[in-house]
Amino acid sequence: MARNLLYAQSGGVTAVINASAAGVIATAREADERIGRVLAARNGILGVLRETLVDTAAISADDLARLRCTPGGAFGSCRFDLDPEAANPAQYDRLFDVLAAHEIGFFLYNGGNGSMETCRQIQAAAQARGYPLTVVGVPKTIDNDIVHTDCCPGFGSAAKYLATSIREVGLDLRAMTTTGGRAFVLEVMGRNAGWLAAACALAADSPDCAPHLILLPEVPFEEAPFLARVRETVERLGSCAIVVAEGLRGPDGQILSMQSQHPKGYVQLGGAGEAIADCIHSALGYKVHYAVADYLQRAARHLASKTDTAQAFAVGKAAVRRAVAGSDGVIGIKRLSGRPYRWRTTQQAFERVANLERVLPPDFIAPDGLGVTDDFRNWCRPLIAGEDLPRFVDGLPDYLHLQLPLLERRLPDYEP
Amino acid sequence: MARNLLYAQSGGVTAVINASAAGVIATAREADERIGRVLAARNGILGVLRETLVDTAAISADDLARLRCTPGGAFGSCRFDLDPEAANPAQYDRLFDVLAAHEIGFFLYNGGNGSMETCRQIQAAAQARGYPLTVVGVPKTIDNDIVHTDCCPGFGSAAKYLATSIREVGLDLRAMTTTGGRAFVLEVMGRNAGWLAAACALAADSPDCAPHLILLPEVPFEEAPFLARVRETVERLGSCAIVVAEGLRGPDGQILSMQSQHPKGYVQLGGAGEAIADCIHSALGYKVHYAVADYLQRAARHLASKTDTAQAFAVGKAAVRRAVAGSDGVIGIKRLSGRPYRWRTTQQAFERVANLERVLPPDFIAPDGLGVTDDFRNWCRPLIAGEDLPRFVDGLPDYLHLQLPLLERRLPDYEP
Repeated sequence: MARNLLYAQSGGVTAVINASAAGVIATAREADERIGRVLAARNGILGVLRETLVDTAAISADDLARLRCTPGGAFGSCRFDLDPEAANPAQYDRLFDVLAAHEIGFFLYNGGNGSMETCRQIQAAAQARGYPLTVVGVPKTIDNDIVHTDCCPGFGSAAKYLATSIREVGLDLRAMTTTGGRAFVLEVMGRNAGWLAAACALAADSPDCAPHLILLPEVPFEEAPFLARVRETVERLGSCAIVVAEGLRGPDGQILSMQSQHPKGYVQLGGAGEAIADCIHSALGYKVHYAVADYLQRAARHLASKTDTAQAFAVGKAAVRRAVAGSDGVIGIKRLSGRPYRWRTTQQAFERVANLERVLPPDFIAPDGLGVTDDFRNWCRPLIAGEDLPRFVDGLPDYLHLQLPLLERRLPDYEP
Repeated sequence: MARNLLYAQSGGVTAVINASAAGVIATAREADERIGRVLAARNGILGVLRETLVDTAAISADDLARLRCTPGGAFGSCRFDLDPEAANPAQYDRLFDVLAAHEIGFFLYNGGNGSMETCRQIQAAAQARGYPLTVVGVPKTIDNDIVHTDCCPGFGSAAKYLATSIREVGLDLRAMTTTGGRAFVLEVMGRNAGWLAAACALAADSPDCAPHLILLPEVPFEEAPFLARVRETVERLGSCAIVVAEGLRGPDGQILSMQSQHPKGYVQLGGAGEAIADCIHSALGYKVHYAVADYLQRAARHLASKTDTAQAFAVGKAAVRRAVAGSDGVIGIKRLSGRPYRWRTTQQAFERVANLERVLPPDFIAPDGLGVTDDFRNWCRPLIAGEDLPRFVDGLPDYLHLQLPLLERRLPDYEP
């Protein structure tokens, strides 16, 4: 008997999470009779609890192709953790009321470490209640910090964008001569894990190319040796390009930041990029510039990696296949070989993945802590390979604004 | 009798200034016998004074094609103004010694408003000295602030990059639901002229799309009506995306900025993006993020506009043709029609252009001062049209690192 499939997106979105959605929808449409309708929740698990659901059958084949190339989370995302069931059984009662009301037999959740804990909680609750549900996690994060997978969809495209950007800025920086030296700082995402900052190293096709130094959250920031390296680089090349992860910490474990005082009295913490630029200017007197990539880096679908979009689609496809086979757990990517790059999807139990975090291993960090090793470069290079351009109309990417009507509710209102 | 041509780059570089260089070199190579060698100075007029010159004959046809697609200034740029000749005749003596020593009959300077003043000074000095020299200005600026031209090479590509970026961020922003509202601020270049901030409006294919508000340096920033519009947007859509030009000024004419205080006592001015984000957070309590595009926006050759690269090449080509014809002045772009977009190159006397600055005209600014008009959109749209991708290798743009040997010096050392 056919049961419906429910898909939802969670956490910070990426340039390719919708490629996973497209992989789920396209595969489920072609799946056998065990899958009925393919529904999606608005704003992740919040949408499940609120019963704000849509039917993806309304998405045309053309729109599905556009969805694959559109950044952001087309179904809406959320940052919401379920309570432990013991603490809030009513929340779970509601959740399973919604699943039952829409005859959901398969729940696919597209997210990162925290979302895999949500999957684990739902799977355990379903088992305890005897509710027939297969739960499959679809991995997604630009941070690449999920354990037991070689890489995460979303990372390769953000990495490609950042490495391209710092390569381009390096050429700009180099063009200008300034007596007195110049430095440029690019702040990238990564609170605890430095994968994105590290990926910028791929931009440098020689040691004289940008980025010259990379500041990783895994390595406590020491001002003196860093400034010595900046000065040495500027004396040799005239300028120095630095990449810094937003989560950079000092030797005291505190996040590096600026305390900003607005003339009107507002106070806020500025970012690591500004702090590093200011540190260089104050200590060495160089002219400094800094850029903050912020959301640009996780939305830059125009520069997606072909490897990444293929993997994002593939984890969606694999999730449906595992769901149909009744196999719970989170999909991963296993690297079969590096050169040529070959990979396949895998699946892990939620317990092995949920709430854990993978930081850069020591053998990927340069001995001086200010860069990466060739082992890292070789690992990372295939993940940014290939281009997968969206269609452009009038000079801009023609992204999809998905607008599906909400399914009629079958249950009373509920606000988590 | 053949005289040599000297080309140089000046001011902040762009994603396409090297396309102008390629246009100059390719055209001069094919020109008649009036042009001898095609030389270039390192770091603009500084390189002329220092006699640090290269011969572009060493650039292969393949490298010339890569040069056309490489951002930054391949010959090096500078920010250096000549003194008035009356104040420093020795500087001009040196300049013409170098030109004479290398038999330069044509000087092509690729820059913005300030560089056109340099052209004017050199032209006047050549005339006064009876030195046979044709001086042609090749326009370049992402700021689009040169007068007597419909647009400037460099602007279209930066505009396309920024409009794409804010469209992408808008999809990201929209995906996340937050109780309490969210705002995102993108800081773009433009100290006095808001052309780049304005161009971001092209990203919005409906009024509900990002960017929702644009803060232009032409319009004094008034906090209350701005915050009212942010609040209205967040109450309607859940989030608000704002573009702010770095040169935004308050009603007092002062640049909007943050006074930052580093824990170690450094003090520096943060940017308009941070200040606006902070203003929103403090007044409305929304969660805020900001990005600072900085050099990324003027180096993003990977997303160059095809119109822009064509115009950048064309102004280089036209400059050589005018030089051969003995016609001094700066090249411009004249719009012949908007739909379909047709244009041709023109030439203006340096006096009409030098040191002037073109800001957004009133009919391009929305009545409320927080956006642009359809007239602006229609003017701007063709400038970002078309893609002109560089070649990618191993997932990254394969840019040229031009390394040409310095020509042997014929004169003593000189440092300006």
